[in-house]
Amino acid sequence: MFEQVRIVLINTSHPGNIGAVARALKNMGFSRLYLVAPESFPDPIAESRASGATDILDKAIVVSSLDEAIAGCRLVVGASARGRKIPWPVVNPRDLAREVHSLTQDDSEVAILFGREARGLTNEELHRCNLHVHIPSNPDFSSLNLAMAVQVVTYELRMKYLESLENEAGDSNMKAMLSPQDSGWDVEPASVDEVEMFLEHLERTLIDIDFHDPEHPRQLMARLRRLYQRCCLDKMELNILRGILRSTQKVAGTWGAQSPGSQ
Amino acid sequence: MFEQVRIVLINTSHPGNIGAVARALKNMGFSRLYLVAPESFPDPIAESRASGATDILDKAIVVSSLDEAIAGCRLVVGASARGRKIPWPVVNPRDLAREVHSLTQDDSEVAILFGREARGLTNEELHRCNLHVHIPSNPDFSSLNLAMAVQVVTYELRMKYLESLENEAGDSNMKAMLSPQDSGWDVEPASVDEVEMFLEHLERTLIDIDFHDPEHPRQLMARLRRLYQRCCLDKMELNILRGILRSTQKVAGTWGAQSPGSQ
Repeated sequence: MFEQVRIVLINTSHPGNIGAVARALKNMGFSRLYLVAPESFPDPIAESRASGATDILDKAIVVSSLDEAIAGCRLVVGASARGRKIPWPVVNPRDLAREVHSLTQDDSEVAILFGREARGLTNEELHRCNLHVHIPSNPDFSSLNLAMAVQVVTYELRMKYLESLENEAGDSNMKAMLSPQDSGWDVEPASVDEVEMFLEHLERTLIDIDFHDPEHPRQLMARLRRLYQRCCLDKMELNILRGILRSTQKVAGTWGAQSPGSQ
Repeated sequence: MFEQVRIVLINTSHPGNIGAVARALKNMGFSRLYLVAPESFPDPIAESRASGATDILDKAIVVSSLDEAIAGCRLVVGASARGRKIPWPVVNPRDLAREVHSLTQDDSEVAILFGREARGLTNEELHRCNLHVHIPSNPDFSSLNLAMAVQVVTYELRMKYLESLENEAGDSNMKAMLSPQDSGWDVEPASVDEVEMFLEHLERTLIDIDFHDPEHPRQLMARLRRLYQRCCLDKMELNILRGILRSTQKVAGTWGAQSPGSQ
């Protein structure tokens, strides 16, 4: 599991927090740190706060966009401090650990996103996530320091891993529902980028048939995104949905014009 | 429980850590901070790192000896990073939370001790404890930052408290994920018959756009049914999907003809 989890920090302001996150990661046995457009990195303050976890900083991957940080991941999770206009599937760190542990039984990768110190993740970033993780903090003083949040989440992941070692002898945990993320499903799950291309194709098609007006988007695409990301589409389902969009565009006379992600 | 737990920091070197502990405590709903002979307190660095938890710092009780900090407590717990020469009863933070929760059902008080940044608690201090708590960290890089350790321990205490509230209400189900079937979702779930009408409408539309041939159905509708039933559609999502089908049929010139379930 430890090699399959990426911790992604977005637009971090204070290099000290990046160092503290590196230390927290290494304390919990993790090592893969992605930095999306950090304000200052590398930075001696980060080195100093890492307290010896400089190998994590040295290996950290700096990218300029969220897309690069989550490419190839099966599951994208966003740390969220507060309720949102459109509620998204949300779990606490313990339930997240259960999900991640079960998902990483094969070679799937998971990205967990942490936002800016002052403002967290943007709505757009949160909508890129399959699910949100919320640390059940004091409602009157709810905002944890960035590195503290990473510590709590990675602590739960480690606890789950250790628990599974204990249980390996006789695991009696029955999954409530079989989904494409479980072994025993018939088709491989779609990747995050395949789902993203489908969502772009969907939006284009909805414009073509005059259902969606990008000038007055309301919450349409956010609601459809939430729906299809919640499902954990498998590859065949995704191909079917793409096929439906192609047929729809053919009927509308727009197929082959400029559909993004068309093949 | 929250008022019955004292967090005791012994000989803390860096005032920044005292501030970070104050913030962590308040985030988790705790407030009682004892400082045994801190190197520098009060200190503006502590204020700054507390990020608004200055009330915790203002109320902090500074004492010169461990005895004063633990006076009157029923249970004294020491945070311990490593195995000791004389093995002491040791629990992880989750098991500690269970102990503390059960002990504080009456008005008993508990002290949890955290030692110096560089050297932790002395053997003498550890021997004053009924119990040690150890965060199961990476054996190759085991030493957590002081405030991180406080965060993890108080997080577990809070989780135990929240779990007990749920159990009290008779709901022992820790929900794995928020979905349209849970309270807290923004829109009511669609009923089974609404989903059924949508699936009929979907099939009709797929025929209209020549995507689906009922003479050679393969597994198409079964796969789409499994997908949309797995999602637990809410009423608004269902309306959006029906709207897309209507717009598709309009483009195909079949809307209003004989679509089953059309309104």
